[in-house]
Amino acid sequence: MLAGPFCTMLLADLGARVIKVETPWCGDDARLYGPFISGESLYFASLNRNKESLAMDLKSEAGSRVFVRLVELADVVVENFRPGTMAKLGLGYPSLRVLNQRLVYAACSGFGQTRPYSHKPAYDIIVQAMGGVMSLTGQPGGEPARVGVSIGDITAGLYMAVAILAALQSRHQTGLGQLVDISMMDCQVAILENAIGRFQATGDVPKAIGNRHPSITPFTSVRAKDAGLVVAAGNDALWGKLCQAIGRPEMEKDTRFVNNELRTRAADDLGLILNEAFTVRDRAEWLAILEAYDVPCGPINTVADVMADPQVLAREMLVEI
Amino acid sequence: MLAGPFCTMLLADLGARVIKVETPWCGDDARLYGPFISGESLYFASLNRNKESLAMDLKSEAGSRVFVRLVELADVVVENFRPGTMAKLGLGYPSLRVLNQRLVYAACSGFGQTRPYSHKPAYDIIVQAMGGVMSLTGQPGGEPARVGVSIGDITAGLYMAVAILAALQSRHQTGLGQLVDISMMDCQVAILENAIGRFQATGDVPKAIGNRHPSITPFTSVRAKDAGLVVAAGNDALWGKLCQAIGRPEMEKDTRFVNNELRTRAADDLGLILNEAFTVRDRAEWLAILEAYDVPCGPINTVADVMADPQVLAREMLVEI
Repeated sequence: MLAGPFCTMLLADLGARVIKVETPWCGDDARLYGPFISGESLYFASLNRNKESLAMDLKSEAGSRVFVRLVELADVVVENFRPGTMAKLGLGYPSLRVLNQRLVYAACSGFGQTRPYSHKPAYDIIVQAMGGVMSLTGQPGGEPARVGVSIGDITAGLYMAVAILAALQSRHQTGLGQLVDISMMDCQVAILENAIGRFQATGDVPKAIGNRHPSITPFTSVRAKDAGLVVAAGNDALWGKLCQAIGRPEMEKDTRFVNNELRTRAADDLGLILNEAFTVRDRAEWLAILEAYDVPCGPINTVADVMADPQVLAREMLVEI
Repeated sequence: MLAGPFCTMLLADLGARVIKVETPWCGDDARLYGPFISGESLYFASLNRNKESLAMDLKSEAGSRVFVRLVELADVVVENFRPGTMAKLGLGYPSLRVLNQRLVYAACSGFGQTRPYSHKPAYDIIVQAMGGVMSLTGQPGGEPARVGVSIGDITAGLYMAVAILAALQSRHQTGLGQLVDISMMDCQVAILENAIGRFQATGDVPKAIGNRHPSITPFTSVRAKDAGLVVAAGNDALWGKLCQAIGRPEMEKDTRFVNNELRTRAADDLGLILNEAFTVRDRAEWLAILEAYDVPCGPINTVADVMADPQVLAREMLVEI
């Protein structure tokens, strides 16, 4: 479960001093996830930069004493045990609050601190599946697809960082900390956005529809002669520019496509027309043309492409340390 | 571009008073995105709860005067124009800071305020593609898949909320606001997590691998007799429990599968074995068995399933207003 480590890494990036508590025997499970360089897990490294680590056995009196001393000095405790575990150790929020009333106690779990599912274990893929995001991802008629990054953990980590910072903001007014209860599944439900509205409006259960957008058209991937790219026209003005860019200016006034609602209804037809239009040139050529018309577009980059991208390098998103 | 609206909706949920500024002619483009109920866009509604709205023409003297008055009183300005647009209106951060030195000015754009790509337009799918997430999502050998929710916008909105709250935290110490510069593409790179480490460790460009996890095995979807489910064993103890749950206790000691690294190398073989094992019972039966063994598991829910889920209802994630 990387939601906790992702959240605390974000806080460390922002300047917080983060002390990670691990078991003395084998430490965080993530230390055993590959790939490895010189025996060190890069998976672990990708989640724990800028952190200190303390090994302690919270079940022992000595370990618990050290932990309690840290809590007395801390602004925030982040934990991602199954609900009830910290209480069993005598370290639940009601106990810790007595020691430090300014403490923000942030608990992240698969389904939250409250019943009926609070006792269930979870990992990223469990909440991606149960929260509905997988059912919306993938090709039409195909298998539901897991998002290829751990979006179940990552969104929970981001929401937890927001909640912790909001609790610290509140503490400036009240002088008191509070309990933050993050459920990974809640966070997946919170990012379903327009899928809930679509279901309510039509009664049709939203499904995976490939790479197009359910409500905005065109907003999709297309294949150029040599490679894939994406193109998005979020309003009628951009639609007009796109028609010009691909040499089909008459299409702007085509009654099937004259506004976003009609284009979305006719998305399949329009997809065929666009894919046919794009096959005649290479991707680089298309990107140059679309850019000249100021139409939002971009290549479908691999991780290798991303790591060599001029903007990614200029923004110092990758730093060797 | 919904990153800005998503961020401010989050801040409104936390209690902020949010005043949305729209053009007097047609308002936010999102008002034109379906589905519609009684002419109102549910897409727009899903992003703008709890907000007030003011229509003003920032290009007119009157509109600009109202905006400036709001800025003098505000803690935070959030904008998601293309970089340079606010400066052209005379409303860039350097101008606004003079009026209110405590102002946090948060700008969200496709690629950030700095060159070389700062001038390029973007929408969700553009940064999903350019940031690498699409290349990691989908079935092996298939087309790269767009994540079925607007994860390019949503992660940017979440990072922006974190950054704004961190800037407010800093203001308690310094008395000064600051510029927050969010690039949607940066946010996609920031969530690539272990994909970057895998590429660095092996030189192999990470690809879409279907529903399994690149570093943890088993951690995947399987098909029961009637429907799909997901199952995840993040450590050797859970692996042992899973072997028992599916009636294959001898597999725990199988030398091919004895630790996570070996299981990940043998993921294809293991996937076949698991899929075969799971076809003999219905999903509900498997979920009950796996739960009895405390193995993380769950159904692949549709949006309709999510909206009827007992935990989602108990947590009041869906509220009729």
